[in-house]
Parts: sequence; C-alpha cells; structure tokens
Amino acid sequence: MSAYLSCGLVLVLPLVLAAAEPNSIQPAPSAVRGSQYPRLNADGTVTFRVTAKEARQVQVAPRGTGNGLGDQPIELSKDAMGIWTATAPVRPGFHYYQLLVDGFACNDPASKTFFGWGQESSGLDVPDSTLDFYTLKNVPHGEVRICTYHSRTTAGARRAYVYTPPGYDDQPQRRFPVLYLQHGAGESERAWTEQGKANLILDNLIAAKVAVPMLVVMENGYASPPGQATTNRTQPDSFSDLVKNDLVPFVDAKFRTLADREHRAIAGLSMGGGQAMRTGLAQLDHFAWIGSFSGAVREFDIETSYGGAFRDAATANRQLRLLWIGCGTEDRLIQGARQIHDSLTKHNVNHVWLEIPGSHEWQVWRKHLHDFAPRLFQNGTSPK
Amino acid sequence: MSAYLSCGLVLVLPLVLAAAEPNSIQPAPSAVRGSQYPRLNADGTVTFRVTAKEARQVQVAPRGTGNGLGDQPIELSKDAMGIWTATAPVRPGFHYYQLLVDGFACNDPASKTFFGWGQESSGLDVPDSTLDFYTLKNVPHGEVRICTYHSRTTAGARRAYVYTPPGYDDQPQRRFPVLYLQHGAGESERAWTEQGKANLILDNLIAAKVAVPMLVVMENGYASPPGQATTNRTQPDSFSDLVKNDLVPFVDAKFRTLADREHRAIAGLSMGGGQAMRTGLAQLDHFAWIGSFSGAVREFDIETSYGGAFRDAATANRQLRLLWIGCGTEDRLIQGARQIHDSLTKHNVNHVWLEIPGSHEWQVWRKHLHDFAPRLFQNGTSPK
Repeated sequence: MSAYLSCGLVLVLPLVLAAAEPNSIQPAPSAVRGSQYPRLNADGTVTFRVTAKEARQVQVAPRGTGNGLGDQPIELSKDAMGIWTATAPVRPGFHYYQLLVDGFACNDPASKTFFGWGQESSGLDVPDSTLDFYTLKNVPHGEVRICTYHSRTTAGARRAYVYTPPGYDDQPQRRFPVLYLQHGAGESERAWTEQGKANLILDNLIAAKVAVPMLVVMENGYASPPGQATTNRTQPDSFSDLVKNDLVPFVDAKFRTLADREHRAIAGLSMGGGQAMRTGLAQLDHFAWIGSFSGAVREFDIETSYGGAFRDAATANRQLRLLWIGCGTEDRLIQGARQIHDSLTKHNVNHVWLEIPGSHEWQVWRKHLHDFAPRLFQNGTSPK
Repeated sequence: MSAYLSCGLVLVLPLVLAAAEPNSIQPAPSAVRGSQYPRLNADGTVTFRVTAKEARQVQVAPRGTGNGLGDQPIELSKDAMGIWTATAPVRPGFHYYQLLVDGFACNDPASKTFFGWGQESSGLDVPDSTLDFYTLKNVPHGEVRICTYHSRTTAGARRAYVYTPPGYDDQPQRRFPVLYLQHGAGESERAWTEQGKANLILDNLIAAKVAVPMLVVMENGYASPPGQATTNRTQPDSFSDLVKNDLVPFVDAKFRTLADREHRAIAGLSMGGGQAMRTGLAQLDHFAWIGSFSGAVREFDIETSYGGAFRDAATANRQLRLLWIGCGTEDRLIQGARQIHDSLTKHNVNHVWLEIPGSHEWQVWRKHLHDFAPRLFQNGTSPK
C-alpha cells in the first residue's frame, strides 16, 4: 500500500475501489464534514491522511486500549505533495487518537473532537457490521437536552445533558423513571451521547419495547467545592454532594420524574462506575438500581467497602433492586471486578455479572448500557 | 513581557498578580477544563502557552478579523523547559485561532473546540466588561435540545439544536412563535449556542420581559441532495427545500408552535444571512420576519433581487412584519449592506438598519441577535 501512496496514486485508488464496492469504503462517521479521511476500508483497515508539507515525521498515536491499532505510534508515509498516509488494521468501536507531528501531540484536523483525556481529542468511530443496537434507525427519537442549573455544592453553574424518551412531550401527565449515567476519567457530560450513543441505544431499546421509557441524566463527574477551579482531579465527595443536593433536586423539579428510589438508577463507566457505586450505596434512600461498567475499584472487602453496604446480604438484597457489575475480559480492571463478583456471590448478594470480550473502551460500555438499561425499572436482581 | 517569559518567570508572575487582583487574571472561558491558558490578563491582553519541547517555531494564527490579535501569526517564545508563551492585546468577543507548530496548523490543546472553518477549531472567548447581555445570570434558563429527524430533501438524518424558553414544559397548553437562526460558512448547528450564546441572550431578554418567549431552531446550513455527501460547499436550493419540506414540518409537529407566518421568523449571519433572505423571501407564506446579520449579498437590485420581492414596496411592507439588516462598520461586507439599506430606503421598503462598530465576527452577531430578538412577534417595521 505504501508503495502506491508514495508514488502519488492515493487520490486515484480509492475512487477506483469505490466504484467497484459502492459502500464498502467510506469516511469514518467521526470524520469532519466534507473530509474523506480517516477512511474505513472494506478489509477492516483504516487509512489516515494528513497534509503536513514541512513535517519530517507524522505519526498517529492511538490512545487507550482495545482499538486494534496497537499501543505504539503508527508511522505515516509522505508523498511528493507533502501528504502523509498510513493504513492500519482497526477494531470496531470508538477509539481516541492523536497526531504526533514531529513529536508535537495534536488533533487530526480531519476528525471531530470528543472530550476525553482532559481535552478535546480526535476520535475514530468504526461501525461493527455485526451489531445495530446503537445505529441511528428509523424509530422515534428522544431528545438530548442541554440544561443549565445552579449548584450550591460548587457555588456555580453546571451543565447536564438529559435524554428525554420519545413521546415525553406528548404525555404531559406521565411521569418517568430516571437513570443517572456517568462518564469516565478525563471525559465530560457530552461523552455518553457523543462517544457512547446512549440516546440511540435507548431509542432502539424503547422502540423494541425492551426497555421502559426513561430519562437519562448525564452530568460532569468533576465537581469542586466553592472557590476551587474545576480540574481533572476527581473529588468523590463533591460529586456525591452535587448529586444529592443539586442534581437530583434539579431534575425532579424540572422534569416529570417518578421521584423515589424505586424509580432512580445510577451507573457509570470506569471512574463513573466507582462514583455510581460510592454515591448510590451511600444514598440508598435515593437509588435502588446501581451499575458499574468497568468500574475502578480498590481492594474490595465485603465487610467494610462502601460503608459496609454488603455486610448483611439480606439487607443489601432487600434494598438493591439491581446491582449490575461488568467488565471486559481484556481490561486490566477485570481482576478487581472478578474479585467483587466472587465475593458478592460467596456472600449471597444478588447481582448481575457480565464478562464480555473487550478492553477498557467505549464499545464495551455501549454493550454494558445495552444490557443494563432493559433491566431497569422492571426486572432487577431482587424482588420488590 | 517576553523578557520575563524567556527567563522562566511565567509560572510565578500570574500567581503574584492573582493575589493582588483576585478576579482580574483568569483562564479564558473557552479554555479547557483544568487549563490555566489561554489566560486573560487585567490589561486587556491574552497569554497563550504551549508545551512543545521539540518544536523550532510555535505561532498563534488568528483566524478571521476584528479580534485585536491582528492578521499575522504571533510568535511564541520558548523557555528552558520547552514551554512557549506569548502575550498579545485582544478585543472582547469570540475569536477562532490555530497554532502553527513548525508550520503545521493545528488546534491549541488548551482550548475547547468550536466548529468553524469547516473543522473543529480552537476559539478564544474574551468577556466584555461593559456588556452583560450574554452573561450566564441567575435567571430562569431555557434548554437547548439536540433533536434528530429525517429529511426527505437529503434522504438522511439531520440534527437540529432547538432552544426552548424557560417555562416551556410548565405550560403544556401554550404555543410559541419560532425563530429559525442560521450560522455562517464553515460552521454548524452548534455555533449559535457555543460561539453565539444565543440561549443566554434569549434567557436574559425573556427574563427582562424585553423579548417574548420563543423557540429558536438552529440547523445546519449545509444540505446536499440524496446520494451526495455533505460538503462545505453551500447548496442554497437544497437548504431552502430542507427548511420548507422537512425542518418546519418537523418543528411544528414536534413542538407546541404557533404554526403560521405571523409567528415564524428566519435570520442568520453571513452565509446564513443570505440563506435567511433567500429562503424567507421565497417562502413568504411561511415567514413574516426576516433578519440578515452581516449577510453575504451580491449585486442588489431592487427590481430583480430575491425574485423581485421588493419591486412593489407596498406589497413588501404588507407582507414583511420585520426586515432587519445589520453589519459591522469594519466588515468588508458593509458596502453591500449599505447599498441594500440605501436602495430599500429610497424605494420606501420598511426595514430596520443597524450599523455598529465591529468586523465580520461573533461579537457583532451576538449584538445583532440582541437587537433583533426583542422586535420579533411584537413590534416589527410594519403594522399587522
């Protein structure tokens, strides 16, 4: 391939192949409007293309794991026009990446940006032809509402993304259950919509009558006490306070919710999984359904962890309508997750455990939500 | 200043000044979470800071005009740690910019990204201490709803940002007028919210009872016929068809609108101003209120332009409740705008003309919206 590229045929080749296989080669859905790259090829590879006439070296640096691109920078080759390209195998899913241009880490101008790694980052979304649960289909669509509200915990304005299900506006007397859904470290309230496709996953589940119509509240997991700037350092107590004192009251006042613990769930991925466990188990008067997607957990102890919430299995089983724990088998956090699962099992604490192929990555979390959401507000792990 | 920077005092200096003047030095609102740069200084300058250890040259390249940064790349100076900084005078408003790292144009990792120039671009938002009409205040806030709908014109899914005013959900019997509000060339449906602060402008105007509560529909001005990829090339006919056949019907079905021409306005900036004039004047059965903010106009002819909509002043004055035309005095489009204004005046076509200081830039368009929105659906230029 690089032989073709370096002799200037790169512009011709895709056109020829495109004529032969009309829909098999196309820009990634994450490419910016009007850009033909990053380009997904029929053979499961991706082609990156960067114009950098004066550069001596251009690389694509994948961020995170499980992307199929590997964990080392990919070298691009330069043609006579100063256009750099490389083609590499890639796995379906959503993958963050950067360019390294003569060693300077920056975004790919051809990519949309997604908030991750504490900054606006390039991302590569690669459809999985074997899955359509997060595809935009011809079904009724909910909305994602960008909401502004005031927080006493942070003494400032906050922003929440709130998914309202199809038909929310058409049934002004109806009230809905609520899932609070958190992103991972370095991300933001945009992540579950833009990287995770949570709105499309819910649209499709609700259209299939597999999940009940619900609100999904996606806030920013970073909260700082008054007078402190918000940074990329987690402040678990501030976030729990925010949920309790500001976010839940705002949502219950603003939206037609079923405002009790039986109709309120909290879940999250990675750092957000830890926040969901910590916040949910500390506020069992608020939440009866809890999910941890590849959650970050330190030394789990059935007696003492989470304030001893699992010490008495009968109490835990009575209080928790659903405790859901999942992790990808390639994830370095799988050992900790398995430890919790084994300990809960041994201790007879009801829970759902989902171990699926995949790493610490969005494709796993999309699948987690797809498994988790249908269980909410109907069949949990414990009888009501 | 650069003498201080190059001898490594950059990290100390802001802390000292910050202690003396607590709120006078701070990261720009457009800086990414946790970043202290770009930093706005008390003297009306901005300090950029880039870590690029291996680079030989780092520049900030302002995009667009009227930013006070000038139109030439600004050279940054490198300290012993490989950190590059520069301080430059800047004008209040929103300004796109890029980094040039050894000539490679890329985003500043310290900046949020804003869709402009056909890509995700760094942006610098500099508050104006003499204005507060677009400030986030302690008033009731509307929502911005990210809506997905199907278009027959493009044979694909489309996305609209829809501002719903405070109280929309609390008055399920009430219907609202609608402003369709378009961005400029190279931008997207996100622009009026993220760059323009349209939601905050409306929140504040509505709280002050200066504007009537209304919906604001912000769509993407780029639309292509079925089978054609959407590019950064304007297709005026496709966009007009989209508005008529898809967008207005979707909004009227989805939201509680007052679905007649008397309660429907269309406006836009630059390319969007041209689209508003072209679409609005061609669809006078749909729109009675039209605004062009620094609109791009070719050779205006009172007899023939816009299908001869202004040929007969009495007819135009009867049909248009408001024709609003504005431009910044430093804008290269001011001559064309003045020509329209003069021609309409001479021909006795009622209109509002607003000529204010400023260039082809978002600060002017925020002011345009602030002048335009209060006139809508109450006092126009023509009696009902």
